[in-house]
Amino acid sequence: MRGWIIPIGGKLCTPAILERFIDLSGGSAARIAVIPTASSEPDMGTYYEREFQRHGVRTVKALNFERRTDCDDADWLEWLGTATGVFLTGGNQLKLSSILGGTPVAKLLRVRHAEGMHIAGTSAGAAYLSEHMIASGSEGATPRVGMVNLCAGLGLTNRIIVDQHFRQRDRLGRLLTALAYNPFCVGFGVDEDTAAFIGPDETAEILGTGAVTIVDPSQVQYCAVAEAAPGETIDFVGVQVHVLGTGSTFNLHSRVVTPAAHAVPLTYR
Amino acid sequence: MRGWIIPIGGKLCTPAILERFIDLSGGSAARIAVIPTASSEPDMGTYYEREFQRHGVRTVKALNFERRTDCDDADWLEWLGTATGVFLTGGNQLKLSSILGGTPVAKLLRVRHAEGMHIAGTSAGAAYLSEHMIASGSEGATPRVGMVNLCAGLGLTNRIIVDQHFRQRDRLGRLLTALAYNPFCVGFGVDEDTAAFIGPDETAEILGTGAVTIVDPSQVQYCAVAEAAPGETIDFVGVQVHVLGTGSTFNLHSRVVTPAAHAVPLTYR
Repeated sequence: MRGWIIPIGGKLCTPAILERFIDLSGGSAARIAVIPTASSEPDMGTYYEREFQRHGVRTVKALNFERRTDCDDADWLEWLGTATGVFLTGGNQLKLSSILGGTPVAKLLRVRHAEGMHIAGTSAGAAYLSEHMIASGSEGATPRVGMVNLCAGLGLTNRIIVDQHFRQRDRLGRLLTALAYNPFCVGFGVDEDTAAFIGPDETAEILGTGAVTIVDPSQVQYCAVAEAAPGETIDFVGVQVHVLGTGSTFNLHSRVVTPAAHAVPLTYR
Repeated sequence: MRGWIIPIGGKLCTPAILERFIDLSGGSAARIAVIPTASSEPDMGTYYEREFQRHGVRTVKALNFERRTDCDDADWLEWLGTATGVFLTGGNQLKLSSILGGTPVAKLLRVRHAEGMHIAGTSAGAAYLSEHMIASGSEGATPRVGMVNLCAGLGLTNRIIVDQHFRQRDRLGRLLTALAYNPFCVGFGVDEDTAAFIGPDETAEILGTGAVTIVDPSQVQYCAVAEAAPGETIDFVGVQVHVLGTGSTFNLHSRVVTPAAHAVPLTYR
């Protein structure tokens, strides 16, 4: 059974998010690897080592893969090989994809995750988790041709595209654009201080002070992305949007939504 | 055993390419589905029906999914369910991804391909085959931030990124840019009238009058994509490039190259 996939929208304050990740990973017996590769702040790894220790984790280690050549380090690979949870910090997601991509580290993360190791990422770390990663883009609510740049991410799932700092940075338009190119994926717009805990059964549980905006284009009847010119609005008809706060769930497979205070699951397909 | 994946670089003239695809699909007993969705020319489906008939295929049918609602057509889905080979025409690859993406057609193509059905695509059809698709980009040999737009493709494999009309449209730069974002994938720059026949054992065999330029970033030591500004050159160190003509092979798993007239396979990793 694969491990949990946990995108966090940045600006992590609510202790419950880190605590749930630690619980899943074995509680005080968890072995947490922190990967601060996305960050350019030299003490980011140390900061999270202390954060996890403060939450009772005895075994935590920052593995700062700064260059592609670091990704062959036998000791660090061995450490990753026995971790129960991995935490990817914020920064620039292109550092994650361009430094780890195609190296033994990315391979090991995929293999261990398939075996049951959990992987959480905040901000840039959240963007990187999926097969399709938003590398950069423009702000605004209206989808327009060219307003988002996608590339290959870590590849723990190909079903979702994550966008982070979602409400705070007005990113609905770029997430819609990413989905308009191919309405196969489901968009997860994750607000700051909010997480989606996506379990092995493909149910995402929302936890935090903001919301996760689920953008599901599976029922789209019309999408004009192939006809629109660069910069033009993309006509996009039939997109399903769910705004889900803490305690709500969404199943990626069945597309069943269960709002926190609603007794009955809602099916829409 | 999965079916063959066959990207063709456009401007298909050499009969051997279509003949090999037909042979793989069962020869005169082949059941070929032509999907002309990428094209805006109304007779593209009929053109390829005749082409396949001219090559001895008795059972060939053009399924022109023009709108997302066409992708629920029970008769066409049933036809696809028994095809032995599928041929995607040229046009605009964003029509393929935005019309077929997330519909029963894309799902069925992936399922049947996993079961052994072969899928060939020329030009836009070639771009669409992989999980990561080049939607558009600029010409030139030098990789620059922002010169390529990627999105989700059909997803028959996540190992390759295909670019087509490769030499004719000077596309090395945009393929390098796509790989610089994440050096996990291998680039296949496919010239016109040239195909890569990628078998279930992950060996690609080149056939045609041009070449396939294989761009393998797995040994890259340094990639500056995260630091470079939009439009700037991306420093990219240690990219392996193989230019392979007809009869040469490349294995995606072992990375062994065998040039056509060379007696011994060449291993470089």
